[in-house]
Amino acid sequence: MATALDTSPSLTLSNALPLDSGQVLENVQIAYQTYGTLAPEKDNAILLCHALTGDQHVANPHPITGKPGWWDRMVGPGKPIDTDRFFVICTNVIGSCMGSTGPASLAPDGEPYGMRFPVITIRDMVRAELALLDEFGIGRLHAVVGGSMGGMQALSLAANFPDRTARVLAIATTARHSAQNIAFHEVGRQAIMADPNWQDGAYYGTGKEPDSGLAVARMAAHITYLSEAGLTHKFGRRLQDRQAVGFGFDADFQVESYLRYQGLSFTSRFDANSYLYITRAMDYFDLAEEHGGRLANAFAKAQSRFCLISFDTDWLYTTSDARNVVHALNAVAAPVSFVELSAPYGHDSFLLDVPALDRVVEGFLG
Amino acid sequence: MATALDTSPSLTLSNALPLDSGQVLENVQIAYQTYGTLAPEKDNAILLCHALTGDQHVANPHPITGKPGWWDRMVGPGKPIDTDRFFVICTNVIGSCMGSTGPASLAPDGEPYGMRFPVITIRDMVRAELALLDEFGIGRLHAVVGGSMGGMQALSLAANFPDRTARVLAIATTARHSAQNIAFHEVGRQAIMADPNWQDGAYYGTGKEPDSGLAVARMAAHITYLSEAGLTHKFGRRLQDRQAVGFGFDADFQVESYLRYQGLSFTSRFDANSYLYITRAMDYFDLAEEHGGRLANAFAKAQSRFCLISFDTDWLYTTSDARNVVHALNAVAAPVSFVELSAPYGHDSFLLDVPALDRVVEGFLG
Repeated sequence: MATALDTSPSLTLSNALPLDSGQVLENVQIAYQTYGTLAPEKDNAILLCHALTGDQHVANPHPITGKPGWWDRMVGPGKPIDTDRFFVICTNVIGSCMGSTGPASLAPDGEPYGMRFPVITIRDMVRAELALLDEFGIGRLHAVVGGSMGGMQALSLAANFPDRTARVLAIATTARHSAQNIAFHEVGRQAIMADPNWQDGAYYGTGKEPDSGLAVARMAAHITYLSEAGLTHKFGRRLQDRQAVGFGFDADFQVESYLRYQGLSFTSRFDANSYLYITRAMDYFDLAEEHGGRLANAFAKAQSRFCLISFDTDWLYTTSDARNVVHALNAVAAPVSFVELSAPYGHDSFLLDVPALDRVVEGFLG
Repeated sequence: MATALDTSPSLTLSNALPLDSGQVLENVQIAYQTYGTLAPEKDNAILLCHALTGDQHVANPHPITGKPGWWDRMVGPGKPIDTDRFFVICTNVIGSCMGSTGPASLAPDGEPYGMRFPVITIRDMVRAELALLDEFGIGRLHAVVGGSMGGMQALSLAANFPDRTARVLAIATTARHSAQNIAFHEVGRQAIMADPNWQDGAYYGTGKEPDSGLAVARMAAHITYLSEAGLTHKFGRRLQDRQAVGFGFDADFQVESYLRYQGLSFTSRFDANSYLYITRAMDYFDLAEEHGGRLANAFAKAQSRFCLISFDTDWLYTTSDARNVVHALNAVAAPVSFVELSAPYGHDSFLLDVPALDRVVEGFLG
């Protein structure tokens, strides 16, 4: 899991954070990164929201992996999200493990929360983000931007706190988690909970962490981030460092080797309990259910311009999911543009080199 | 895992079984079930081939679960595969755990094979099936029929032993396992191997079996057997025995409860090592690669009539996979009919109530 190497700035929220569960979190710490300069009028802020396993390290080297930030290609001086013009801020979501309060944090009794951490929602994440913006004195955002779970946060912010942003850019996302989405997450949670090292979530400090279970969870999820065609193009049935199959259980195929690496490397930077809590928040996400069962109701008070982007090969959050949001926005006459981009990488397209995405993002932010 | 309750007939093959790995299996036991009567001319036999987690209990109550056989609706007197006319035989594939030789069987040294069992292939399964037919004196089959992995066996039989069947009916199947197919299987294998009770496969008799890992493997696979639309129709976001989400990690959603049940119940009837070996056999399946890299070559000597059936909602083995087989058969001018059926259940459609499937099966068998 994440170690204490992270050097992100962080602050403790001035007020307790009320949660959808009815519980209240005290002394909430929020870790964040900023890029660019906040204008004196504080009107040039863009909130970026990260995905399930993302974090605040958008455009700086990751403190654990040393790799470039997850949207380094998108955020920076002269880039589509231009930090010469905009003040970009990204927080580590609550429940995560890169410096913000989560299950690995110390509870008021001085012991790690573990599974005593309250179950949180996407809206709770947004509440924490807005509380941080309050600390900065930022009222209305120039834009909120996110992909995947980041897009859920963007939609939740627009629906629940409509005066807080002028623009909403939601990429490769959905307004509700489907049965299949929930099913894949449940497999991951069961894999973690089946690992004896999980110890009902009280593994902190025991020297035994549920890395095996977390790796399996990551592997299963990772398949859903890629398209079938992309996997075939990238790996096909090519063998890993051999001329013929080995008639054994080593990684004969490149795709096996790749998945094993994805699973194992993930455990060095992520906390298994955070994985449980954040997947749960995503499964609970249903913006219509939050607003009387009708998605259009969620946007009845929206005061933002919207842009929805989907990818044709994304089978996790499909173009149809994006269209549902667009139709709801149309129903309340909210200004919305929508584009389905063609890219071969499946759901992960929003993180990868898709020049058309860059152009849409840059154009929409104005 | 499977207990000794199984009362299927079985016999020991007269000859050692040569395997694609180069190894040889001695004293191979094959458990099977038959339905109907073999004609004196022995020309009315239909070989049914079961899927990954299926077995020989096609049309009789399952000895462990007590449930009807997996194709009870298709096989019987007056049914589409009419046992008033045909002698239907289904064997438990080698590597499995319902009476045929597999990793739980005793090796020549008197101890269970465990991971000393040789890695097998789909073609090896077919060799064992044909060896059993030899024991019955059945030369040329009226038909070989199978869905999913059963369809792989049907295609393998037609390609490698072209004089052994007059008809080939392959349903919801493919001539090669794709990168995505391999990836899902690898997740399942890693889940099993991550379970400390797996003990490198030497868990027999220890009182500890890798049920948790096997359950996770089954859950992940099970998602691939259903369509996204089918899951939404069957479960959607409906809650399990509650009016609102519980803000916890119990099964809030029906789909979670269903998946957990699928995973747990599977462990009572299946052996984890068999799951490893059979998924490996499927991953190795590439009929083109077996025949010089060109699928049409595989069927160059085919002497059968073929029928391929796919389902429009099957995203595991798609209509495109079936078409690849059809095109290869066309290239060698083999007689083939092909139909894509519309059914909402995804890959599992071949096991479920799809009347159009019944009609095609009955019609093709003549």
